[in-house]
Amino acid sequence: MKLTAEEQAALDASRAYSATTRRPTVAALEERMYTPLPCLDHGFVRLIDYMGSDAAIVQAARVSYGEGTKKVRQDRGLIRYLLRNAHTSPFEMCELKLHCKMPIFVARQWVRHRTASLNEVSARYSVLDKEFYLPAPQDIAVQAVNNRQGRAESLSPEQSALVLELLKRDSSQAYETYERLLGEEFGLARELARMNLPVNLYTQWYWKIDLHNLLRFLRLRMDAHAQYEIRVFADAIATLVADWVPLTFEAFSDFRVGGRFLSRHEAAVLRDALAGKPISQETSGLSMREWRGLVASFDLKVEG
Amino acid sequence: MKLTAEEQAALDASRAYSATTRRPTVAALEERMYTPLPCLDHGFVRLIDYMGSDAAIVQAARVSYGEGTKKVRQDRGLIRYLLRNAHTSPFEMCELKLHCKMPIFVARQWVRHRTASLNEVSARYSVLDKEFYLPAPQDIAVQAVNNRQGRAESLSPEQSALVLELLKRDSSQAYETYERLLGEEFGLARELARMNLPVNLYTQWYWKIDLHNLLRFLRLRMDAHAQYEIRVFADAIATLVADWVPLTFEAFSDFRVGGRFLSRHEAAVLRDALAGKPISQETSGLSMREWRGLVASFDLKVEG
Amino acid sequence: MKLTAEEQAALDASRAYSATTRRPTVAALEERMYTPLPCLDHGFVRLIDYMGSDAAIVQAARVSYGEGTKKVRQDRGLIRYLLRNAHTSPFEMCELKLHCKMPIFVARQWVRHRTASLNEVSARYSVLDKEFYLPAPQDIAVQAVNNRQGRAESLSPEQSALVLELLKRDSSQAYETYERLLGEEFGLARELARMNLPVNLYTQWYWKIDLHNLLRFLRLRMDAHAQYEIRVFADAIATLVADWVPLTFEAFSDFRVGGRFLSRHEAAVLRDALAGKPISQETSGLSMREWRGLVASFDLKVEG
Amino acid sequence: MKLTAEEQAALDASRAYSATTRRPTVAALEERMYTPLPCLDHGFVRLIDYMGSDAAIVQAARVSYGEGTKKVRQDRGLIRYLLRNAHTSPFEMCELKLHCKMPIFVARQWVRHRTASLNEVSARYSVLDKEFYLPAPQDIAVQAVNNRQGRAESLSPEQSALVLELLKRDSSQAYETYERLLGEEFGLARELARMNLPVNLYTQWYWKIDLHNLLRFLRLRMDAHAQYEIRVFADAIATLVADWVPLTFEAFSDFRVGGRFLSRHEAAVLRDALAGKPISQETSGLSMREWRGLVASFDLKVEG
Repeated sequence: MKLTAEEQAALDASRAYSATTRRPTVAALEERMYTPLPCLDHGFVRLIDYMGSDAAIVQAARVSYGEGTKKVRQDRGLIRYLLRNAHTSPFEMCELKLHCKMPIFVARQWVRHRTASLNEVSARYSVLDKEFYLPAPQDIAVQAVNNRQGRAESLSPEQSALVLELLKRDSSQAYETYERLLGEEFGLARELARMNLPVNLYTQWYWKIDLHNLLRFLRLRMDAHAQYEIRVFADAIATLVADWVPLTFEAFSDFRVGGRFLSRHEAAVLRDALAGKPISQETSGLSMREWRGLVASFDLKVEG
Repeated sequence: MKLTAEEQAALDASRAYSATTRRPTVAALEERMYTPLPCLDHGFVRLIDYMGSDAAIVQAARVSYGEGTKKVRQDRGLIRYLLRNAHTSPFEMCELKLHCKMPIFVARQWVRHRTASLNEVSARYSVLDKEFYLPAPQDIAVQAVNNRQGRAESLSPEQSALVLELLKRDSSQAYETYERLLGEEFGLARELARMNLPVNLYTQWYWKIDLHNLLRFLRLRMDAHAQYEIRVFADAIATLVADWVPLTFEAFSDFRVGGRFLSRHEAAVLRDALAGKPISQETSGLSMREWRGLVASFDLKVEG
Repeated sequence: MKLTAEEQAALDASRAYSATTRRPTVAALEERMYTPLPCLDHGFVRLIDYMGSDAAIVQAARVSYGEGTKKVRQDRGLIRYLLRNAHTSPFEMCELKLHCKMPIFVARQWVRHRTASLNEVSARYSVLDKEFYLPAPQDIAVQAVNNRQGRAESLSPEQSALVLELLKRDSSQAYETYERLLGEEFGLARELARMNLPVNLYTQWYWKIDLHNLLRFLRLRMDAHAQYEIRVFADAIATLVADWVPLTFEAFSDFRVGGRFLSRHEAAVLRDALAGKPISQETSGLSMREWRGLVASFDLKVEG
Repeated sequence: MKLTAEEQAALDASRAYSATTRRPTVAALEERMYTPLPCLDHGFVRLIDYMGSDAAIVQAARVSYGEGTKKVRQDRGLIRYLLRNAHTSPFEMCELKLHCKMPIFVARQWVRHRTASLNEVSARYSVLDKEFYLPAPQDIAVQAVNNRQGRAESLSPEQSALVLELLKRDSSQAYETYERLLGEEFGLARELARMNLPVNLYTQWYWKIDLHNLLRFLRLRMDAHAQYEIRVFADAIATLVADWVPLTFEAFSDFRVGGRFLSRHEAAVLRDALAGKPISQETSGLSMREWRGLVASFDLKVEG
């Protein structure tokens, strides 16, 4: 990830700014403002603004006149209770605003999270930069067989190199055509000239989202089933959230990320197993796929 | 509007807090933080937090690395262009968080604006205070005849006094019953005991909304057709917005509040009138109601 | 619940209507259209319209040109997979439209579900009917001690009768005042006269919501922690959903209602218990409250 | 636009289906169900389902027990009143579900309308078809000078042919690479292989939206400032809306499409002009750009 001198100067000026405020502040997050967190080869996420804190969540939940916080232990307990029991509205009282740069195909997954505000650079107004995502060799992998939407082992170094060469060749040619179409020869409208550009081209946007919806984004996009390229961004954002609202992030890690949902039938199987009763897929009411997942999760002993 | 000593102390502590921040700040708004703006007899609106500024709007619209602002005149022009042409997303980049206290019937109109975050005090958890809205005598008015949802001239002082007496009597009796049901005699569940309380009882909440949706709220609730009791709150919030984002508020005043929408047919009538052609309701394609509104708005001369 | 002759005639006319359509239909739901399901003493829920079916969910998930359904077993598997793994968008492809009548305090809980469309009768336009919710004697209960927002055992028949008498007296008086204020003596504006009416007065609305958000509503409002008076409505709506999308409703019952969420620490405790290792609250990382809940759910044997 | 035999058979089967329903139906729309409306070279929009009608809008606005409609003239008046005065909730009571196929760059503009439900084919699950948008020669145009986001006159036939050749060459090469990466040589994961494909590749989705939000989509995307390629889709959808809710569509055409918004200052200028007073840009408070627009719209006579 490289910034132009102009971009770097603008960024430095932002970081140099300082003012006093009566608003809640989070020192650990102030430290991280504006500085890009690199993601993939040319992308980044950087914090532009934030509203609220762990204290703002308990303050809203208590509709209080002052800070609303009590002892840390009570605040922590309240936040865990709210998160666990889907009392989601107090978490909406916090907002994060980010400047992000990512490949178009990542952007297309990202916007499926609709409860957020967004301003993207427009390829109708502006000429897009020549920046394409090219995976690191170890991230170039074959189609997974048992997971129709995932990838499995990496290609050999030779094959990866060949794949990268093909991607580079096509991307370069597409961008050359783009420049030629925009140039004096044709003077083609930007909104038309860009149609040839591939979805690994980088785009960028300002993105603002409340904490409740951000946690939902993180849960789905930090998940092992999410595509690696968007997971990189979710992981970077998660480090900001951990600094911003540490109590909430801890609860999120315990309940939403590290936790596991049990269906009615799965809970019954575990109860039987704990009581020493025999269990089997046939009598469980579970599909074979669900059964295997449960057995693996809890290292269940099954006869036969 | 009166605060308890405890509430006032909490509020003072909030105002005394100060920290440095790298985030955008608006000095005029910092000054107004936490202090209640009284509304009606016991209600208020007070600013708890804000995110963004006029500069943040242009920064997002330009997806820039730094402040994104250019000369004030250019920023003003961009904001007016965005607002006029319904490019609403940059205005979503600003957020306002308020603590509000209002009668239940006002709260019921307020929540029709769904794109906002809300934490209200719960009558299942807490015992509600004995605070009822009683209109000022001059606001007690008869049903309007030509406006099925409005009010017309005020009652006589004697009649107003009698209305207030009736309202006070009923409210007091309802609250006495509430206290009795909650007391030792019955120990009734709070969620049941409250069902007797009238909709002029005060409730309160934390409310967070982005600037785009807030302007929509203001346009509808500052309008002469909105009920007076919610207009009071909208007007108070508008004074905060004017301090917070002056360029946006100016554009909003010109385009959304002071402006007027012309239908296809109305525009044609004006074009004819300006060209000196005869105009009439019969040939205009307008209903009599629309016609009268247009004639009054532009002081049109109509033959006959 | 009683309808006027006029209301009943309008309802009968709706039921008598029949037309042919190419749209997906659900026979079991057609049978239930327009007929009110009584809720509480004067309330109801009745089906006005619906869009989609279980088949529409799989069709959307597969973005198919035709019905998109395969064998029932595959469709059932897909629906369970989607619901379990929070692939929520296909469930948004179904819509339900209801006409509902409920006490104002229930309506106030109901609107907290913001992702829905709503048209409520206006007390500014119309004079409200004299219908107040009065609980059945067995539903009049004392405040729960260990659950700050709930109720516990019922009052004695004598006490219940007294409570009802108080509620009736106040409601009647409030309505008499309402009528007097609206009458010739004052001619008070409707928007003012209604401020005296208690929150157990009935209101009504049209409500439209997609299936994803409806399931969320049901999960929260059918829950034992929801207030009884809104649970009655949620339970009635659930019977419609069971007829409408039986495969989805089955999955919802297994995963969302009958299921249980395990935090990271809780899952670890179960793993230890299943492996025969000793478990204890002290080493579990759980709060005492969480620990007791887990032990009770799985009938865990704890030493000491 | 061509369908495979299998797709056509599925579509025919959908059209052959018929059932009786008690729900509101719109005969003119039933006739158009499932049949694709071709858009651009390979795209389409086709109606999958609908909920509601003009009558459903007035029924919801009146919260009625029966059809809720009165005489057509009254219904028309109510719908026009609601639309003009931004009483938007009754329009949310109608829903349209479409199956759409469009180039990725059009899809990217389309999703900016967030209040809609969406299921798109996944390039992680499925291999994408070899279908690229290539503009018709007359739609290949140069960059507009005075409109940074638009296009101006068409290229010469010779130049257009050359542009098309370049686009075809790059698209073909990209798709060849895609196939090669997916093939036996590499067996690359689909989620990676697709990153090379350009944004003129066609994608498809199911899209469901309520009428209020659909009208907003149409107003913005039928506008002359919208990119031609998305306008084609908006225009096609508009023909469905005209058949579905003719009274609403008429009001929309009068108020939202054919109408014009006047700012406070613009209204004042018109009032002066109608009163025979002199008008000028200097005294108007308008920018030169606003002034010129106003003068042109109303054919104003300006001295000097």
